[in-house]
Amino acid sequence: MATLKLPEVVPSPTEDSERLKKAFQGFGTDEKALISVLGRRNSSQRKQIRETYQQLYNESLIDSLHSELSGDFGTAIILWTYDPAERDARLAKDVLKAKKKGIKHLQVLVEISCASSPNHLMAVRQSYCSLFECSLEEDTESSVSEPLRKLLVSLVSSYRYDKEAVSSEVAKIEAERLHEAISGKQLDHDHIIWILSTRNFFQLRKTFACYRELYGNKIEEDINKCGNGDLESLLTVVVWCIDCPEKHFAKVVRDSIVGWGTDEDSLTRAIVTRAETDMLRVRVEYAQMYKKSLDEDVIGDTSGDYREFLMTLLGREK
Amino acid sequence: MATLKLPEVVPSPTEDSERLKKAFQGFGTDEKALISVLGRRNSSQRKQIRETYQQLYNESLIDSLHSELSGDFGTAIILWTYDPAERDARLAKDVLKAKKKGIKHLQVLVEISCASSPNHLMAVRQSYCSLFECSLEEDTESSVSEPLRKLLVSLVSSYRYDKEAVSSEVAKIEAERLHEAISGKQLDHDHIIWILSTRNFFQLRKTFACYRELYGNKIEEDINKCGNGDLESLLTVVVWCIDCPEKHFAKVVRDSIVGWGTDEDSLTRAIVTRAETDMLRVRVEYAQMYKKSLDEDVIGDTSGDYREFLMTLLGREK
Repeated sequence: MATLKLPEVVPSPTEDSERLKKAFQGFGTDEKALISVLGRRNSSQRKQIRETYQQLYNESLIDSLHSELSGDFGTAIILWTYDPAERDARLAKDVLKAKKKGIKHLQVLVEISCASSPNHLMAVRQSYCSLFECSLEEDTESSVSEPLRKLLVSLVSSYRYDKEAVSSEVAKIEAERLHEAISGKQLDHDHIIWILSTRNFFQLRKTFACYRELYGNKIEEDINKCGNGDLESLLTVVVWCIDCPEKHFAKVVRDSIVGWGTDEDSLTRAIVTRAETDMLRVRVEYAQMYKKSLDEDVIGDTSGDYREFLMTLLGREK
Repeated sequence: MATLKLPEVVPSPTEDSERLKKAFQGFGTDEKALISVLGRRNSSQRKQIRETYQQLYNESLIDSLHSELSGDFGTAIILWTYDPAERDARLAKDVLKAKKKGIKHLQVLVEISCASSPNHLMAVRQSYCSLFECSLEEDTESSVSEPLRKLLVSLVSSYRYDKEAVSSEVAKIEAERLHEAISGKQLDHDHIIWILSTRNFFQLRKTFACYRELYGNKIEEDINKCGNGDLESLLTVVVWCIDCPEKHFAKVVRDSIVGWGTDEDSLTRAIVTRAETDMLRVRVEYAQMYKKSLDEDVIGDTSGDYREFLMTLLGREK
């Protein structure tokens, strides 16, 4: 369900590295070459290219990209070139060190912990420790304030069972517990935090479905009835990321485009992080939710190499 | 600082597997042979033996041990033969599924999360998921009750930075926070839980030292002044496991021996889990704390193959 398209014959990492090196040489940078190489390789191929490039030229591909590029295109292609775990560790760090941390920023932590596999989250935590000399949960705890802290620390610390193990009984009991806490407007109740941060994704989807059957509303609708504070918004993101990540990312793309100007950081993050996983479904979800074409909307709000790179990740041939 | 002694020339995994297979054959089992092979190999050698044995005989070494052995000797040598992460995952499961869960049992979870490396804990969590189809934190949450649950769930979910990164400023601030919570007898305060479950071990040792400088008492002394409930006991184990694991394990050995009868499960666990890491220091600590010889005490309370196996792990040549 990826939109990323690989060439029928993938050149060797050495050929790719040589093309990249050539693109950096001479007057200016050949952005088209960067896009046509990096924008059409999957994460393990990009890893091989990073390693080969380092061996051939004794310099890091990421550093070369940093020194040659800037702006939204530079940010996007660098994020894409990182190992996915390192990319997400860096995205998390950017959020946590920012002075202003609204839901728009903090939702990145939810995406990493609820819209990725448990093993990916673990790899992100390992990468975070080696890059920043402290743990992801340590930084989350010290730089996020209540009422969001407790939830976020638990989410980023989770290592859920990652196969389908679902109990209808647990779904019923925990739907009741969630309902009880939500009805009492106790959105920071331990039950909510523990259920959302320890149960496996399949179980949680069953629990949410059970909630709807028992109480007539979707759980996020009831959460939103509690108010429109940060915790309500964050919990809604948690539910969406677990229940249907493609809906969440369709919204991220939409929010980044509507209104005045474009939020390029969010748009880049959504496309870069999902192009290899479920972007095809995000596109379908986007069309259903907004009666518009995601691709056309992205084209309408971007330009130049940045646009071309995003469209390449979206699988649009030139 | 291990007590485990390897032979000067280590036989190949094939030779070892053949000796083990032979020990199982014929009338009865040759326990001495099992001890002299398995009791003198480190974890990576035991892993190779498990793999080679499986290839050679198309059966699992662990299964063979299970079908041939019983009693305390069987339990000990099987625990020793497991991969350390699987061993600890199984120890944790035993604790969590037991009906009676006193501090003596629950402290196993603290040992795994506070007296092991962060990467080992992560491996235990992965092993737990693949063995038991649910996560360690999920089981901890559903089978431990308050006031211990919150602390234990946080501890088993931790992935601490594992190098020495210490700030005197953090030590001072967090010693104050700990003191404030302890003075107010709020041992389940979020500050206590977060500090103990997210900070790296080096930082925490500095924080405990700073606590003592500032307030004149060791932190565990002040914790114990709050009462003699389960939370007080468990927090003391946490502080010891972080500050000086060898002290904790000296106490585990001692407690397993003193009084009527022997608590073989605890004795086995302490020796099996520490023989390859810090058992030499546990022995020194034991002598200082109890003015007795750990080895002599173990000899005095055990017998037969079980005794011989433990003494082999303690590095005593026949």
